[in-house]
Amino acid sequence: MRFALDAFGGDHAPEVCVEGAVAFAREHSSDVVVLVGDQARLDPLLGPAKKRLPNVHLRHASQVVGMGDHGPQAIRGKKDSSLRRAIELHRDGEADGFVSAGNSGAVMAGAALLLGRVDGVSRPAFAALLPQIDSERPSVMLDAGANTECDARLLATFAVLGEAWARSLWKLQKPKVALLSNGEEEGKGTKLTRDALELLKKSPLNVVGYVEGNALFSSRCDVVVTDGFTGNIALKTSEGAASAVGSILKRAIEKAGLPAKAGAALLKPTLAGLKKIIDYAEYGGAPMLGIDGVGIVAHGRSKGRAIERALVACRRTAVAGLKGVQSDAMKQAAAWLG
Amino acid sequence: MRFALDAFGGDHAPEVCVEGAVAFAREHSSDVVVLVGDQARLDPLLGPAKKRLPNVHLRHASQVVGMGDHGPQAIRGKKDSSLRRAIELHRDGEADGFVSAGNSGAVMAGAALLLGRVDGVSRPAFAALLPQIDSERPSVMLDAGANTECDARLLATFAVLGEAWARSLWKLQKPKVALLSNGEEEGKGTKLTRDALELLKKSPLNVVGYVEGNALFSSRCDVVVTDGFTGNIALKTSEGAASAVGSILKRAIEKAGLPAKAGAALLKPTLAGLKKIIDYAEYGGAPMLGIDGVGIVAHGRSKGRAIERALVACRRTAVAGLKGVQSDAMKQAAAWLG
Repeated sequence: MRFALDAFGGDHAPEVCVEGAVAFAREHSSDVVVLVGDQARLDPLLGPAKKRLPNVHLRHASQVVGMGDHGPQAIRGKKDSSLRRAIELHRDGEADGFVSAGNSGAVMAGAALLLGRVDGVSRPAFAALLPQIDSERPSVMLDAGANTECDARLLATFAVLGEAWARSLWKLQKPKVALLSNGEEEGKGTKLTRDALELLKKSPLNVVGYVEGNALFSSRCDVVVTDGFTGNIALKTSEGAASAVGSILKRAIEKAGLPAKAGAALLKPTLAGLKKIIDYAEYGGAPMLGIDGVGIVAHGRSKGRAIERALVACRRTAVAGLKGVQSDAMKQAAAWLG
Repeated sequence: MRFALDAFGGDHAPEVCVEGAVAFAREHSSDVVVLVGDQARLDPLLGPAKKRLPNVHLRHASQVVGMGDHGPQAIRGKKDSSLRRAIELHRDGEADGFVSAGNSGAVMAGAALLLGRVDGVSRPAFAALLPQIDSERPSVMLDAGANTECDARLLATFAVLGEAWARSLWKLQKPKVALLSNGEEEGKGTKLTRDALELLKKSPLNVVGYVEGNALFSSRCDVVVTDGFTGNIALKTSEGAASAVGSILKRAIEKAGLPAKAGAALLKPTLAGLKKIIDYAEYGGAPMLGIDGVGIVAHGRSKGRAIERALVACRRTAVAGLKGVQSDAMKQAAAWLG
């Protein structure tokens, strides 16, 4: 399979993108990564031609979408941007999916404009993957930030898309779908969540009802649906809390005596493994659901390892046939979704 | 000072309440804790009369508000409940504040009904305290769950109350006030947050604008304002994420080899200290802001240590003169709050 990588997206581009692409290509010798961006800058990063991996390709693009650019404007205005060109490779069948760590508003706008939306989806969403403490799978939460204001039908659409994703990616028969709320009782929530719950009850989905924020990290549910405002706050809060625990642990070890320091040294490989699990890097970015294609947005702060993992996630998503699965799910949902 | 403790509130009442009260009374010999609840059950828990601390008192109450009870109904219907009697002691000047780990809806309803609200406050809020990784103080976030749907004026009221709390409790001159949002740019947020930001800009408060969820754990802001739906989700998500990190660490150590296990053993006291910092127990519950009194809601899962810390928080809040500070702040805010 072939994957297009926006080599100029993200805070540490293009260096980390080249690093991630090379690492991925080394592990997946029958796949191809196409690095998209300014050839004059990418060439020296890849080193002498004869030493290059045969499955890392280059595609020139002269422009870059900045992190501060207005998403839709940048996609329309910068026709030769590395982001736009990467998405076009996917649209034109020259790649089976694309990855970008760039301006997420522009990535979403570009995907919607160039690839189109799955039939019946009014607005696509970002999905966030969160580790479950009692299973090897992550939970998927959407929308993680694409749509600040949503209506009940859109939340129900997110449920359909997330459920299809969980079925195709993890081979779950009946993924458990929940709505994020401020309590589990049905009387809780806002008008929006209550309307969405009512709509979801008409569906054949395995709806478990409302869950609170802590359920995001357990196997009580596989798919957690919320609006993009709340979802973004839940995602950023979970990153902040996990990183706060890490910082407090580090500070405590620094202040502690020699036995604790020795203990920390012995525990170092385990703690590194822990960081690997918690780190967004391991989860390889947020898949976009509801677009007619396979796109992964990696974190803007991504380093090489995170880019590599995002390419792995892109590969897995393409292999799972997400495009067709989403489209089928939306067709079946039309009866109750209205 | 004297503090009333609802001895039958919470999942582990009354045992842990007696335990927490005794621990507090031992440390604060010039203060008095009044345990409120069924005397026949409390008496044996306190042991033989001659061994009792002179500053732990008993006040009989025959009824209990259950965790599943409808808050306002329970307060009105169960006139001799331990919760209602505890609040009445404070109302009648026999206690300088009260603590309950019971049904939070009932605690809030009881406080609003029996103590009344600070002038100008339409609805009181729960404040949650979250550890800042780069300071010794916590951040205060409100509303943490009392009011699911809010308008801009109510959010601005929460800003005034939270700011007054931060000034009086931590002696900060100009606490930094922020609105929780899905991005820092002013164009982000919902209509509600944008209207609230506009209103807050007219205030003399030190408003830093929007912050994202991760800022809850840093000194970038002291007071974070949000509606009770979003605040509850942020709070529960942060609890879930912190506890997920702990679980993953524990599992990693169990799976690891002998050196890591030895390391964990040496680190144990440090990890226990960490747990102490992260644990809600250390922060001693959520203060209620906007009520005309001093009330602390401890977590329903509270054990003895958490009850003790909630009593300490109650004492600190009473000493800081929160009642007067909130009332003054609301008077001064009338000009711009409308």
